[in-house]
Amino acid sequence: MINIRKKTKQAVVLFSGGQDSTTCLIQACQFYNKVYCITFDYNQRHRQEIKVAMRLAKHLGIQEHKILDITILNELTISSLTRFNIPIPNYKFNTTCLPSTFVPGRNILFLTISAIYAYTIGAESVIAGISENDFLNYPDCRKEFINLFGNAINLGMERNINFEMPLMSLNKAETWALADYFQQLQLIRLETLTCYNGIKGDGCGNCSACYARASGLADYEANRSNIMKEMKKKCFLKNVL
Amino acid sequence: MINIRKKTKQAVVLFSGGQDSTTCLIQACQFYNKVYCITFDYNQRHRQEIKVAMRLAKHLGIQEHKILDITILNELTISSLTRFNIPIPNYKFNTTCLPSTFVPGRNILFLTISAIYAYTIGAESVIAGISENDFLNYPDCRKEFINLFGNAINLGMERNINFEMPLMSLNKAETWALADYFQQLQLIRLETLTCYNGIKGDGCGNCSACYARASGLADYEANRSNIMKEMKKKCFLKNVL
Repeated sequence: MINIRKKTKQAVVLFSGGQDSTTCLIQACQFYNKVYCITFDYNQRHRQEIKVAMRLAKHLGIQEHKILDITILNELTISSLTRFNIPIPNYKFNTTCLPSTFVPGRNILFLTISAIYAYTIGAESVIAGISENDFLNYPDCRKEFINLFGNAINLGMERNINFEMPLMSLNKAETWALADYFQQLQLIRLETLTCYNGIKGDGCGNCSACYARASGLADYEANRSNIMKEMKKKCFLKNVL
Repeated sequence: MINIRKKTKQAVVLFSGGQDSTTCLIQACQFYNKVYCITFDYNQRHRQEIKVAMRLAKHLGIQEHKILDITILNELTISSLTRFNIPIPNYKFNTTCLPSTFVPGRNILFLTISAIYAYTIGAESVIAGISENDFLNYPDCRKEFINLFGNAINLGMERNINFEMPLMSLNKAETWALADYFQQLQLIRLETLTCYNGIKGDGCGNCSACYARASGLADYEANRSNIMKEMKKKCFLKNVL
């Protein structure tokens, strides 16, 4: 159905079963010959996330899906994502400081482990759904950080792994456009889980993750062709599938 | 007994119970007000290592000692340190390629987790017994790597953690001199475990770790005052304790 030529290459996708990483996974399945996924189990608030990720990976026919237990993260950090007694903030949280959903070093740890996996299987790329639009809240989502970190990892492992962040410069509306480009908007809408309160699809509608997801979709639906065009330009995607 | 002024600072020491990290820990106990240790349990060949580390940490009176289970490393890497059916090479291994004892990304993962711990407790420094003299075999032991990696971590966590590698430019003889400077040469000799075959103290005498340790000690004993002088210069340590 989609005429993008597959490369004879392998990629490791950091995969949570949410909107962003599922969109990256869908793209990776088009661009890479073999796709491997890692999902991290750190006793996140919603065990449902793991089940959602497993189902999606199976549905998308990926090569291998590793569920890795990193509950050690809980021993080292304090965050409302990993401690059940801290309430989830609503979307109007204070953006002048790090939100309580911030797990310090989480992306760093995830990327490090993914790079080790990529090294072992000989994959050329590590792919994650990190976006600079989260920059205000999460310092490990910056392009600058990813570039520097990638250089450090490659120096330390004597490899040349490509840290690919397809959503880096996209906003949520453009991320919806990317899913739509691959004719998977409905799959993303119905089968992924982004909600901090653990509800699949459109979610609880109250947490900051639901707010970002829903307003992105509304923006995209209100202005499809322009947003699709902008997304394609940013992602260097061809006009016709 | 030692008149070096303590700073009111905290450090996390990456601690295996071997010669190098124990020497770093001894130094950290002199230079920092509170010292925290992390020992990684990744089902290493010798469970004995964990026991040795626990005993030493207790003996040295450190603030808190975390033993972290990262057996996930075994799911991702193939190495004679983590798989029991691969024989340990003797010390005359081929240095033109990475030895089979290389665990790709191991130091990177250890440093990442230590940085998360440091972030959480508000420690200023992460200290590890990494030496550039292992450079030929382990690419993640290079000063260049540590510097770049430290910059990346600090960018991604919005902190200014100091990645201190006291042994970076020391050879094994000078590492013995450093232990001697802190009047702990006998503790290092008798109570640490470096041997790949899991024997405390002088070890099996056949593996590459034992070879490096023993020849370093022989060098130091044959030329104490010059090596001590050279070590002090490299470590910016005062002449008189």
